[in-house]
Amino acid sequence: MGETLSIIPLGGVEEIGLNSTVFEYAGDIIMVDAGLMFPEEDMLGVDFVIPDFSYLLENREKVRGIVITHGHEDHTGGLPFLLKELDVPVYGTPLTIGLIREKLAEHHLEHIRLIAVRPRDVIKLGAFTVEFVRVTHSIVDGVGLGITTPLGRVVHTGDFKLDPTPVDGQLMDFHKFSEYGETGTLLMLSDSTNAEKGGFTFSEKEVRRAFEDIFSKAQGRIIIATFASNIHRIQQAIDVAVMFGRKVILCGKSIVSNTQIALDLGYLKIPANTWLRLEDLNKLKDEEVVIITTGSQGEPMSVLSRIATGEHKSIQIRDGDTVILSAKIIPGNERSIGKIINHLFRRGANVIYEKVSEIHVSGHGSKEELKLMLNMVRPRYFMPVHGEYRHLRYHAMLAEKTVVPWENIFILENGEVLEISDTGARKNGAVSSGRVFIDGKGMGDVEDMVLRDRRRLAHDGIVLVLIAVEKVSGAIVSGPDIMSRGFIFEDTSPEVMNDVKALVTDTLRQMDKEMITDSSLLQAKVRSTLKKYLRNTMERRPMIMPIIVEV
Amino acid sequence: MGETLSIIPLGGVEEIGLNSTVFEYAGDIIMVDAGLMFPEEDMLGVDFVIPDFSYLLENREKVRGIVITHGHEDHTGGLPFLLKELDVPVYGTPLTIGLIREKLAEHHLEHIRLIAVRPRDVIKLGAFTVEFVRVTHSIVDGVGLGITTPLGRVVHTGDFKLDPTPVDGQLMDFHKFSEYGETGTLLMLSDSTNAEKGGFTFSEKEVRRAFEDIFSKAQGRIIIATFASNIHRIQQAIDVAVMFGRKVILCGKSIVSNTQIALDLGYLKIPANTWLRLEDLNKLKDEEVVIITTGSQGEPMSVLSRIATGEHKSIQIRDGDTVILSAKIIPGNERSIGKIINHLFRRGANVIYEKVSEIHVSGHGSKEELKLMLNMVRPRYFMPVHGEYRHLRYHAMLAEKTVVPWENIFILENGEVLEISDTGARKNGAVSSGRVFIDGKGMGDVEDMVLRDRRRLAHDGIVLVLIAVEKVSGAIVSGPDIMSRGFIFEDTSPEVMNDVKALVTDTLRQMDKEMITDSSLLQAKVRSTLKKYLRNTMERRPMIMPIIVEV
Repeated sequence: MGETLSIIPLGGVEEIGLNSTVFEYAGDIIMVDAGLMFPEEDMLGVDFVIPDFSYLLENREKVRGIVITHGHEDHTGGLPFLLKELDVPVYGTPLTIGLIREKLAEHHLEHIRLIAVRPRDVIKLGAFTVEFVRVTHSIVDGVGLGITTPLGRVVHTGDFKLDPTPVDGQLMDFHKFSEYGETGTLLMLSDSTNAEKGGFTFSEKEVRRAFEDIFSKAQGRIIIATFASNIHRIQQAIDVAVMFGRKVILCGKSIVSNTQIALDLGYLKIPANTWLRLEDLNKLKDEEVVIITTGSQGEPMSVLSRIATGEHKSIQIRDGDTVILSAKIIPGNERSIGKIINHLFRRGANVIYEKVSEIHVSGHGSKEELKLMLNMVRPRYFMPVHGEYRHLRYHAMLAEKTVVPWENIFILENGEVLEISDTGARKNGAVSSGRVFIDGKGMGDVEDMVLRDRRRLAHDGIVLVLIAVEKVSGAIVSGPDIMSRGFIFEDTSPEVMNDVKALVTDTLRQMDKEMITDSSLLQAKVRSTLKKYLRNTMERRPMIMPIIVEV
Repeated sequence: MGETLSIIPLGGVEEIGLNSTVFEYAGDIIMVDAGLMFPEEDMLGVDFVIPDFSYLLENREKVRGIVITHGHEDHTGGLPFLLKELDVPVYGTPLTIGLIREKLAEHHLEHIRLIAVRPRDVIKLGAFTVEFVRVTHSIVDGVGLGITTPLGRVVHTGDFKLDPTPVDGQLMDFHKFSEYGETGTLLMLSDSTNAEKGGFTFSEKEVRRAFEDIFSKAQGRIIIATFASNIHRIQQAIDVAVMFGRKVILCGKSIVSNTQIALDLGYLKIPANTWLRLEDLNKLKDEEVVIITTGSQGEPMSVLSRIATGEHKSIQIRDGDTVILSAKIIPGNERSIGKIINHLFRRGANVIYEKVSEIHVSGHGSKEELKLMLNMVRPRYFMPVHGEYRHLRYHAMLAEKTVVPWENIFILENGEVLEISDTGARKNGAVSSGRVFIDGKGMGDVEDMVLRDRRRLAHDGIVLVLIAVEKVSGAIVSGPDIMSRGFIFEDTSPEVMNDVKALVTDTLRQMDKEMITDSSLLQAKVRSTLKKYLRNTMERRPMIMPIIVEV
């Protein structure tokens, strides 16, 4: 029996985000993408999440390189943390590499080899030959991959939509994907993000119509918030600004740096005297201004958020301003975005957002596009990726409707191994995997236990019971003193605090010397008594922390 | 100068929920609705929110009654808390009163007078004459109000849509609203929930088509999750079940009690031998079963949630089951609902939800319906209610486009007073208002300070520093001991704990006896030193609580 090919998603098949897939054949490993995810609500105080990359670190001598499909953070954001511990080359198209270079510099990882390739370039990484294939998506310079292995070809679509009229005129490379179908494909991994959505996703150019409509009516300044990486969206905003005789001011670190990178690499075209600095704002008349910025998700520290709450140094909203939120509302962010919109309206702006106008289109293909890709590549095996289970499931149903029999479709969980050999494909065990929570500067990861504590603290607060005990005699020399945080406010609910104090005093009185001098027994007794009392009388479950001082 | 009419929203004009509006003329006050709101994400550990009703309590001798437009919790949920402190009669249609009776019984408020009225009934409450006018909404028996005051008529639409084909055949009372327009209306307050949405809201009957389509394809059991109060939706599910020869099992306390109330009052028709008990489930074949339940918002303790995670005693998902989430996804709940859907798919169910099928329609009118209402009633003054600022603003723009000049439109904040006299209408000051957070059994409200603490604890946890000091000499007899919860886990990050301990020890060494024996000085010093250190080295801001024990 010959060697086997293993495909192992370390992230991206149980969530939107964390996209990272390992390919292993004999002594060689490559990984496609190394993404992060922004935290869910119950991950309190976590800044972001990355996959557990320990499988790569345990097999470090086999890793030939990391191939990145495009420059979005859910495909690149894990790189700094991985590359700190694993010095391997990273491959991607020029804009992707440009964005990664910027990010690695922030983490002092300038020594990593970054190799820029062009669509249709072919590179050899151990047993794998990787061909880059242009796709259209909400960031320019995205690619899918044709990966030739000794057992056959694997196609990874990356994130894609079939935009028939892309802003830069660079169509998806249908011909290459067709060739993959014609010459035979063993396995396809494909983007499931929009597998629930019927029909076709609109072309990015549709947004231009909405922009033109809004610009033609706007009397005052126009402020557009979008993702810093959406170069096409920025290009369209600039084009329409020029059309209506307006200047463009970019505001925010990431949008300025991304725009500069895209401009330097030729992915963005800005006519002379169009891009002005923020300092020039007051030299312009209102009807000459377009400000492009970030903060479309209601992020509290973003430029848009500071503008909305009146905390921005240079930009104050006034009557006649038009604010356009030109981005998808990421699920979970509805309320914070809603608040920003309310603030902007209150300050006098006219606010235009997804719900009331067509100022955003998705970057991911809907059902008809996914079926077209399946029919074009017609793989023997199919593995939906990039989504939660429901998205993968819907995508699997599309695959079955088109070209792949159900038994040849594999929905994996993170860490599970899809093994392909001469005799077929099957799931075969799992490698260590999981999520790593990054907090603050990332100096310490957040442990699960810490998160559990935070959830508990967040829900009902903490009650401290302080008792000082004379070590030998077991006499109570001080306390019980009751303190709380996030529970009932001590000053306004003294009666509750008094009840609790009386209860603990009573409990102590009933304990004998042996128990009192055993501080862990004493702690346990105080905790259980108090827990029961607060649950029964108030239906609350604060964290209870008895502190015993032995003197 | 004569008396003035004051209109004071205590809730519902800065949020979806909390709907409560006070009307005051001379010595008489009535309030329309007394709603609650479910907490936002940053209201940690809060079960729900009600308006601050203190204005009513301070003027208790003037309050003639509370008039309720319909039985949804965002219009009735504040009643138990208000009626505990204020014994006034409550007026509403029979189903509304039935639902309120059930709720008040839970709070042992059976002594409150509940008066059931019919549409077109007229009641007199002090200076106010209130006429009830049928509207269509996502709960049966909803009404708007025509309130005659000495200064003219005020129309309050309640929550409404213009359903041309309501399930119970009871159309909105267009004729009465037209009469109000014909005979003159001073002020209208109208539902703004869907003021952002273009066009018309679909009829509730459209859902029947989707149900029929799903039922015709389903092989196994069908489980439908919806709101317990959506009697029309439940009726349609039952009708389609009968059509396809299925029996209906209701599962969950609220849905059983609401259905029973609606059935008793004649608002729901269930053919004999159709409603079976949960115990009968196993006697039926899969293709004979429809289970109707709650939990469409992903609430963790709901029946649907327990079914999805395999924790329900009687209902286990199996291959062939179809689960329909027939309800709006309330913003903020997307992620928890998404998780339920994933779980159900994993267990083998086919899951149908808003995103993939038309199994829900809104109960609130869209732009065209709002404009029609404005044109029909053509009030002199207009006050949009039921929404966040952006909804009110959009509604105001619709009013201006139709019949009300901009200067006659008033967007109020909670507590603000709209004062109308012979000489016109104007905002005039504000009464005390705000939000009251209810936690647990509602024995103690949650103070703002407690919430702030919870947010802080949730984000970075708490660090305790325990120091025992000899009162007279200032000698440190024990400590510093460092403990933490929700910060860095002590066992896995001993080095951080050791660093902190060394820092505090060092700080103590540099302090003289005077400072050490002043426990508040000592606390302040330890707190500021540690705060600075953790911020600089780790970018974290845990709550720091130095505990000084004097022995």
